[in-house]
Amino acid sequence: MEQVCVGVDIGGTSVKLGIFTLNGTLLKKWELETKPKNDPKTLIENIGRSIKEKLKEGGLTLTDCVGVGMGVPGPVLPNGYIEVVVNIGWKEVFPARILSDFLAGMPVALGNDANVAALGEAWMGGAKHYQDVVMVTLGTGVGGGIIIDGKIVPGKHGLGGEIGHMHVRESEVEKCNCGGVGCLEQISSATGIVKEAKRLLEKKKSASRLALLEDITAKDVLDAAKAGDALALEVVDTVVKYLGIALSHLAMTVDPEIFVIGGGVSKAGDFLIEKINEKFIYYTPITENKAGIVLAKLGNDAGIYGAARLVLG
Amino acid sequence: MEQVCVGVDIGGTSVKLGIFTLNGTLLKKWELETKPKNDPKTLIENIGRSIKEKLKEGGLTLTDCVGVGMGVPGPVLPNGYIEVVVNIGWKEVFPARILSDFLAGMPVALGNDANVAALGEAWMGGAKHYQDVVMVTLGTGVGGGIIIDGKIVPGKHGLGGEIGHMHVRESEVEKCNCGGVGCLEQISSATGIVKEAKRLLEKKKSASRLALLEDITAKDVLDAAKAGDALALEVVDTVVKYLGIALSHLAMTVDPEIFVIGGGVSKAGDFLIEKINEKFIYYTPITENKAGIVLAKLGNDAGIYGAARLVLG
Repeated sequence: MEQVCVGVDIGGTSVKLGIFTLNGTLLKKWELETKPKNDPKTLIENIGRSIKEKLKEGGLTLTDCVGVGMGVPGPVLPNGYIEVVVNIGWKEVFPARILSDFLAGMPVALGNDANVAALGEAWMGGAKHYQDVVMVTLGTGVGGGIIIDGKIVPGKHGLGGEIGHMHVRESEVEKCNCGGVGCLEQISSATGIVKEAKRLLEKKKSASRLALLEDITAKDVLDAAKAGDALALEVVDTVVKYLGIALSHLAMTVDPEIFVIGGGVSKAGDFLIEKINEKFIYYTPITENKAGIVLAKLGNDAGIYGAARLVLG
Repeated sequence: MEQVCVGVDIGGTSVKLGIFTLNGTLLKKWELETKPKNDPKTLIENIGRSIKEKLKEGGLTLTDCVGVGMGVPGPVLPNGYIEVVVNIGWKEVFPARILSDFLAGMPVALGNDANVAALGEAWMGGAKHYQDVVMVTLGTGVGGGIIIDGKIVPGKHGLGGEIGHMHVRESEVEKCNCGGVGCLEQISSATGIVKEAKRLLEKKKSASRLALLEDITAKDVLDAAKAGDALALEVVDTVVKYLGIALSHLAMTVDPEIFVIGGGVSKAGDFLIEKINEKFIYYTPITENKAGIVLAKLGNDAGIYGAARLVLG
């Protein structure tokens, strides 16, 4: 029987799971509800039971599976310890150990979900075949992951790839969720884009199709910008400016081969990538020889790909 | 005979060399002039000849030496290629190969000087026993090096650790040498500190002991700040603010165990470290669990230590 590995992506509402061949072909994927919350042992045992069942359905035994990787939506310390993951109610737990115990000692690897998604994109997604990759995920917040020599840089305090909380905007006055002021996430997340648009509408009172909408979404802003709406273009200009600055910081520090942009906001596609790239080039004049910027390819599956890859070491 | 390794730090005016035991004891160090310039082969062969002589003087043969590491003041591509190093006049050369050929095929490793100095501090200096280290060197310019899992992150375009050219100051209008505007180096280098002091003297016309000096140095500014001079303290406040922001960027991306501050400006000692740390904490509110900041210990020898360590792999 061909050997397989399993990737598990634990989110606030659902747990995504996938069985993969060792060279990255997704054989089967499924989902569970994230419940119970506040009880890591029961949730993880539910996950373990489900993995056993699906392996069995596929004619596979535990012996055919080289291991399971898990991504969790919070900081993971170097030894696999989790202090707290707010939105699933976990506290002071070594999750990998619980799953490994349940699966008869099978190797289990653990990572932060954004880092794991970056690893997924580096393995089989937008950055396939690249060894040094930085992924930036533009969703409700801004997340990220840094891959060097094919491995996640998890950080010594669980902050590896926390790109969304780089302080980039000196003129900001509102507080970010992290307690800081002027974080990238405050501008370049879906939430940030909407806030930026509302601010500008308030300030400029200029004609904009956005003024006609009852409730503005990030997609509305990006669509309006694509259609040439001046105010929306101004918002997008700010959004890509600070993304360009953040990418230039990363180019001046870890200097990856390639940047991958994912998350809901990245659905704006090449329009967005080109604009980010212009700013990245502007803020990185030191050399012509620069990292490329590409779109993520795996969408919501990046997490299960990366988690599976994680356990392959 | 005990085995040794050799570290070579090639600078604009002098080449520093050191023979080390494999566990980091410096047995002998010496210097050569950096000449001829514009002729890498001759300079490197001079270096090789000098290494042979000193090994022989120490009763050592080439067999006793496991390898030589070299730091050069410019970007090194992943394959060891150097496109250009302006201040020694090198162009389109594989320097490690030349030295290895001269030394009968001995292993030779090559790195950027700032990265190599960081490795030196991580090996035997201020960050001894740490595996994930970021060093920031505050000299005429601002350099840096990132060490993850005990290895340099050289970057895919030779930009790894180019911390001095992170764009951190939005309000800056003057150009940096790199072609950018608002780089950390423009504020927090010795040159930047002097410029900042002159700007403030010009603008404020306030009483400051600095106004009495004919030619201000960075040391004058730091000494005046230590003595409580208000204008000098304001300069230092700006200098450490942008350093704190840069360190917070690094904490949010590679998240090292420890930061090491070196270079001439770091002679201001704990006074400076404490002020940087205050700002670093301010700009990194996301967690209490943070990297420490320490002074470099090896001074000008960091380069030979790191170069020697580099060849040990």
